[in-house]
Amino acid sequence: MPEPIMNDARTIYMDHAATTPVSPRVAEAMQPYFAERFGNASSMYRLAQDARAAIDDARERCARVLGARGSEIVFTSGGTESDNAALLGVALARRSDGNHIVTTQIEHHAVLHAAELLEELGFDVTYVAPDRDGIVAPEAVAEALRPETTLVSVMLANNEIGTIQPVAEIARRVRAHAAEGGRTVAIHTDAVQGPGALEIDVDVLGVDLLSLSAHKFNGPKGVGLLYIRRGTPFRPTQVGGAQERDRRAGTENTPGIVGMSVALEAAEAARPEAAAACAAMRDRLIAGITERVDGTRLNGDARRRLPNNVNVSFPGVEAEALLMGLDLAGIAASSGSACTAASLEPSHVLLAIGASESMARSSLRLSVSAGNTEEEVGYVIDTVAELVPKIRSMAGARRS
Amino acid sequence: MPEPIMNDARTIYMDHAATTPVSPRVAEAMQPYFAERFGNASSMYRLAQDARAAIDDARERCARVLGARGSEIVFTSGGTESDNAALLGVALARRSDGNHIVTTQIEHHAVLHAAELLEELGFDVTYVAPDRDGIVAPEAVAEALRPETTLVSVMLANNEIGTIQPVAEIARRVRAHAAEGGRTVAIHTDAVQGPGALEIDVDVLGVDLLSLSAHKFNGPKGVGLLYIRRGTPFRPTQVGGAQERDRRAGTENTPGIVGMSVALEAAEAARPEAAAACAAMRDRLIAGITERVDGTRLNGDARRRLPNNVNVSFPGVEAEALLMGLDLAGIAASSGSACTAASLEPSHVLLAIGASESMARSSLRLSVSAGNTEEEVGYVIDTVAELVPKIRSMAGARRS
Repeated sequence: MPEPIMNDARTIYMDHAATTPVSPRVAEAMQPYFAERFGNASSMYRLAQDARAAIDDARERCARVLGARGSEIVFTSGGTESDNAALLGVALARRSDGNHIVTTQIEHHAVLHAAELLEELGFDVTYVAPDRDGIVAPEAVAEALRPETTLVSVMLANNEIGTIQPVAEIARRVRAHAAEGGRTVAIHTDAVQGPGALEIDVDVLGVDLLSLSAHKFNGPKGVGLLYIRRGTPFRPTQVGGAQERDRRAGTENTPGIVGMSVALEAAEAARPEAAAACAAMRDRLIAGITERVDGTRLNGDARRRLPNNVNVSFPGVEAEALLMGLDLAGIAASSGSACTAASLEPSHVLLAIGASESMARSSLRLSVSAGNTEEEVGYVIDTVAELVPKIRSMAGARRS
Repeated sequence: MPEPIMNDARTIYMDHAATTPVSPRVAEAMQPYFAERFGNASSMYRLAQDARAAIDDARERCARVLGARGSEIVFTSGGTESDNAALLGVALARRSDGNHIVTTQIEHHAVLHAAELLEELGFDVTYVAPDRDGIVAPEAVAEALRPETTLVSVMLANNEIGTIQPVAEIARRVRAHAAEGGRTVAIHTDAVQGPGALEIDVDVLGVDLLSLSAHKFNGPKGVGLLYIRRGTPFRPTQVGGAQERDRRAGTENTPGIVGMSVALEAAEAARPEAAAACAAMRDRLIAGITERVDGTRLNGDARRRLPNNVNVSFPGVEAEALLMGLDLAGIAASSGSACTAASLEPSHVLLAIGASESMARSSLRLSVSAGNTEEEVGYVIDTVAELVPKIRSMAGARRS
């Protein structure tokens, strides 16, 4: 195995799609709100108004990045809550308009399982299939619409295979179709993988709801947001106090909210350079691994994918063995979603794009950041190229 | 007005029921999990296992304080989510057993509005009235039970008036009644105001579900827990990844969870002394204010109340004017729940114990901690005694 270029204190971290560290400037911005400006932002006195002002400011900052109004931003506990709230909130609010929603087979489970909860509550859900490249065709979404459809949810970029969906085109088709019927259909996108990589302007995307999770872009864990376009019917599902203009109850997580706003601005400011740097590493990883490992299959479209996402399958290789070998070599990577890493099920995303069960179980996801180096990329290629044949020969030996 | 004993840097903070600052030892415990041990706890590599181990440890620590098993603890984003999940999770899971739940008129809105959401979904809810002292009688809860009742939710201590409910006795009555009918009824308590003040052992209380919120006991905002007794039917309502043994989806908030566990242990360890110190200040505040302000009415039972809670009404005084005066004098206090501080509605708790609308609008809640001083208590009594007659005479002048 190649000599690792990291020491004990340093893992080569290539799982940025799973989570990212809080950046120093984010940590610094959060700091005063733990013990000093700790007041409950909903209280009336001056101590609390410090927190309120910080949250108002954070709301405006997040809104600006999204091209939205501050009043359209609802702070949540993360991407999962945002996705759940988008689906349940709109479907329940529009129940009298119709009981059908449309989503896709390759959404994050936060969307898919919310859709299943809606099915339990009497709603109908259509799960549109992607093509073999992991792209959802706008026509396929439009064809799934019914007169009783109230919501369409299509993710901006897939968390496993990185494919970028034509959300703006889907939104145009859906709106045109709905307008013909004299109806409206709300459009949600899970943009959790977007910040720092893709444009996430809500008007450019043409969406009515959009989910983000701070820890995916060097913000803290446990905080996210849901953009809800003004006028979109929404029935809150986390209920209690009147926080977030009655759209999401619970004492405001001031440090988390402040941290997210700083992280989102930083991700957006760094986006052009970071995306280019990541794309170069991505392409080198894909080319290097494909060249050096027989039978490598790239999962998802080669071009319409996140600049930082590599997802490849190696026939005859159990992902678990490969990940363990990479871990021992100091490389943190995954086979797909961290949310289901402990599960024994093959990836629903890989199955949806036509992978066999065994191919779906042999996937490696590498997700880089601009902080990764060319040296690290080279080491990862070398290590994968060395490990895969070893695992194959061991598996072959076991079979014989 | 008495000379303030604080300076610009120091508010006399008497709103600990609303929120509390993160303690230094909690902040220190959280620190490594933001940027160093930042791995996604659900990932498989070593970097992530640091986070996983920290969360497992935090789970055991929290469980020990509650007299529970680690596997019975579900980490959430706070008290509101915990309360919502308890009601929806059990009611939906047991829908085929019955569509009726029982709660009380004085619960936090996180329980009441979750109950209303269940009503929208076709459930029946009975809201038991408290007595004039703000105590819910076990007989009243038992009488509300029906053959189709699946869940009873009664808070441990009221967040506005501090009254402690006979949860253990209620649980006994409910279990006995259910057993007669050969059924089971799950029992939930919102114990958000409990830590550091009351015993919160789930077996002593006899409850199946219990909600906590970290920021109420010097832990961070944005994290809480829901205890779910083994075997209790529960349908998760925050859905997506397989985190928290499939009971609550979403990337684990490692620093928040670690911080909560340290805060909970500290609150429990300090409880006997802190409760005694608070009770002494509470009783001096009540006696001093009652003695010096004509017509002071204590809201809630004088003895069966949280050691740190004072809630008094002053006829003829708008709470808003009093709170503003207190704020100017450097005292942070509230009229009731922070979650509804901005609302113009009178307190549902005060109305439920028989207060008139005007009395309900004239309430002052002071909630102390062991960190408050006798000097501060004296200053608060002096300030209230000076402000109330002033506000009354100004109101009188406006009327004449």
